[in-house]
Amino acid sequence: MKNLHGNAMVGQSGGPTAAINATLSGVIRGVLAAKETIPTLYGLRNGVEGLLNERFVDLTEIFKEEENLLTLEDTPAAALGSCRYKLPKPDADRATFDRILEIFKKYDVRYFFYIGGNDSMDAVAKLTAYLETVDYEMRIIGVPKTIDNDLVGTDHTPGFGSAAKYIATTIKEIVRDCAVYTVSAVTIVEIMGRDAGWLTSASALASLSGDGPDLIYLPERAFSLEQFFTDVKAALAKHPNVVVAVSEGIRFADGTYVGASAQSGAKDTFGHAYLAGTGKFLESAVKSEIGCKVRAVELNLPQRCAAHLASATDIEESVRTGKTAVPAAVSGVSGHMMTAVRTDAPYRVEISSSPVSAIANMVKTVPDAYINVAGNGITEAGIAYLAPLILGERTPVYENGMPKHFVIK
Amino acid sequence: MKNLHGNAMVGQSGGPTAAINATLSGVIRGVLAAKETIPTLYGLRNGVEGLLNERFVDLTEIFKEEENLLTLEDTPAAALGSCRYKLPKPDADRATFDRILEIFKKYDVRYFFYIGGNDSMDAVAKLTAYLETVDYEMRIIGVPKTIDNDLVGTDHTPGFGSAAKYIATTIKEIVRDCAVYTVSAVTIVEIMGRDAGWLTSASALASLSGDGPDLIYLPERAFSLEQFFTDVKAALAKHPNVVVAVSEGIRFADGTYVGASAQSGAKDTFGHAYLAGTGKFLESAVKSEIGCKVRAVELNLPQRCAAHLASATDIEESVRTGKTAVPAAVSGVSGHMMTAVRTDAPYRVEISSSPVSAIANMVKTVPDAYINVAGNGITEAGIAYLAPLILGERTPVYENGMPKHFVIK
Repeated sequence: MKNLHGNAMVGQSGGPTAAINATLSGVIRGVLAAKETIPTLYGLRNGVEGLLNERFVDLTEIFKEEENLLTLEDTPAAALGSCRYKLPKPDADRATFDRILEIFKKYDVRYFFYIGGNDSMDAVAKLTAYLETVDYEMRIIGVPKTIDNDLVGTDHTPGFGSAAKYIATTIKEIVRDCAVYTVSAVTIVEIMGRDAGWLTSASALASLSGDGPDLIYLPERAFSLEQFFTDVKAALAKHPNVVVAVSEGIRFADGTYVGASAQSGAKDTFGHAYLAGTGKFLESAVKSEIGCKVRAVELNLPQRCAAHLASATDIEESVRTGKTAVPAAVSGVSGHMMTAVRTDAPYRVEISSSPVSAIANMVKTVPDAYINVAGNGITEAGIAYLAPLILGERTPVYENGMPKHFVIK
Repeated sequence: MKNLHGNAMVGQSGGPTAAINATLSGVIRGVLAAKETIPTLYGLRNGVEGLLNERFVDLTEIFKEEENLLTLEDTPAAALGSCRYKLPKPDADRATFDRILEIFKKYDVRYFFYIGGNDSMDAVAKLTAYLETVDYEMRIIGVPKTIDNDLVGTDHTPGFGSAAKYIATTIKEIVRDCAVYTVSAVTIVEIMGRDAGWLTSASALASLSGDGPDLIYLPERAFSLEQFFTDVKAALAKHPNVVVAVSEGIRFADGTYVGASAQSGAKDTFGHAYLAGTGKFLESAVKSEIGCKVRAVELNLPQRCAAHLASATDIEESVRTGKTAVPAAVSGVSGHMMTAVRTDAPYRVEISSSPVSAIANMVKTVPDAYINVAGNGITEAGIAYLAPLILGERTPVYENGMPKHFVIK
């Protein structure tokens, strides 16, 4: 297949991560290395929203300096902005796709790279399907990112390793914090992950060198309050400071979210229903059943944006994933998502690709082999899978005592 | 005054910080350097609780290796354990003090170093007062630590700089995270500090190189919901992603905590009253009044235990404070708290000491000159005070992708 000459576009979509800009940097690096074929790389402001509104920046211009790319790689969240806009089905709303094609033609765009999670891969699949029906040659590539690590067809996703490193380190620090008093106390740490327990499983890594959480609950197992009380009491019998890592998405056997079940219909002073959350629900449950000191901690946004503690392995792979997407597209690959193919002993990752149609709209959950029989901990196989992903530290440039970020104005 | 020969004891008390072990390391270093005068340094397990129960470890033995001291300096929380035990007044319960004196005599203890915040300085003051009434020569020194920075008589407290660096960096990362979408949204970040707004004021540092929070509210100013709505609306008119930093301890003009006022008396499914917290209250308030997307984030425990992001300035000063306490005591100082005396341009800190009786049980709040007239931001004078305290990064040893900690077994 001969080289296709034309410009490229890149967009970022879905929730921010600590590594999505590293992947963007990779795409920019890939295009800069292929400038004979791809003269200009347009960055879409707010993903598909920016595409439809022709809001672009010229990334080939902004990132002429290597220094800017390095700073971008240490900057959390989507530097181009993100969106939650979901492309319609091509046969339901052909006009939107015709409009996109018009814009591609107007800017002589032959390459389209979309960095994101499941919804973004769905957009890539739809755009690919549409382009097969028109007479315009283009290459469309999905470049994965999600802290949730829930995309199928790839060993793991860019962004997950950095979130996992933040969670493992923070749990390790919280375990030290909780260890200082002698009175019985339960600390419940609520971790992101609505459908898959990957992020929560990373809390187990804290036990690799020091003390990890006593109990870990993932959405992959039905949650039983009775078993939870039994587990916590057994842990308290061993030592006074029990730390529990729990996924926000755990559900009871009947499928209801544990977090949702705390709602009693009660309203606050503004008339809004109280939304307790999983951690707060379990805090109240422990207070009732056990009566000891108990505290819920929600790790919240820092899980996905703590770039100061990014995994060097994750950032390197994220850059490489973006960078590899460009020659793949130039060589004729289209309608694919970039994937990570792993070998162990020693850990090594090769970047490849797979048809996005077999990837989009599916969820990869934590396999049984990684969860202990009791459903309250991670097995050695799980730890072996997770451990290499958080290795290595970045050395961001600090300015005024804080990491320097690159902001695209 | 001639040298007083005898052993020493050191304890840690109050809430954990990222720097309290650095101060402990300093005391150990100081004693190792004075071993002709002080042969043994006993570490009290869980502060005064360990003193009364004779639960000690021999720190001079455990920390013979420099490497262990360095790892200890990067380990968060109190390695000796902490306590919330409050010493009684000497005239109300002389027996407790007689018991302490008996233990001091039994172990030939002539030096007592107590690392902690306000309650610990109160213990130092009481012990000093008691010892003046008995015929046993001893030197009692309070070594400050508190992330709250609310001790009088010193420019700032060990532990504050590291918490401030974590808060400034995390706010900066959250601002980037929130900037990715185009829809109007308010993110409310709740920061520790019941009586003083020092920690919350540190969020302003994020603006030094990049974007900081739009609005900052401290407990030093009465909080008005009407003014808050006006402020948030004005910020939303400028850009869609508004970030608000708010102290957990803000109060209305009538003195009630904003967090407490969310309580409607409503109960959850376990029959416990909902405790919303300041951030959650303001989230609900914004939802009612403005109706845009709104989210509350509580920084919680990581503020005080995120040693991986400690301020090198803070850790160095914490070690130096502990280390300086020993020759001070040997030279005859007693009943004092170690203090930081600052000069600016360039920033420099000299460690000195002041009588603890003039320090204990007082709270140093953020001065008027550091808060803007509108009561929703920090002045340049405030930023100038804060900025040097977060400078410099530690390089902890990483093991399995997480910082290595030293645990006293």
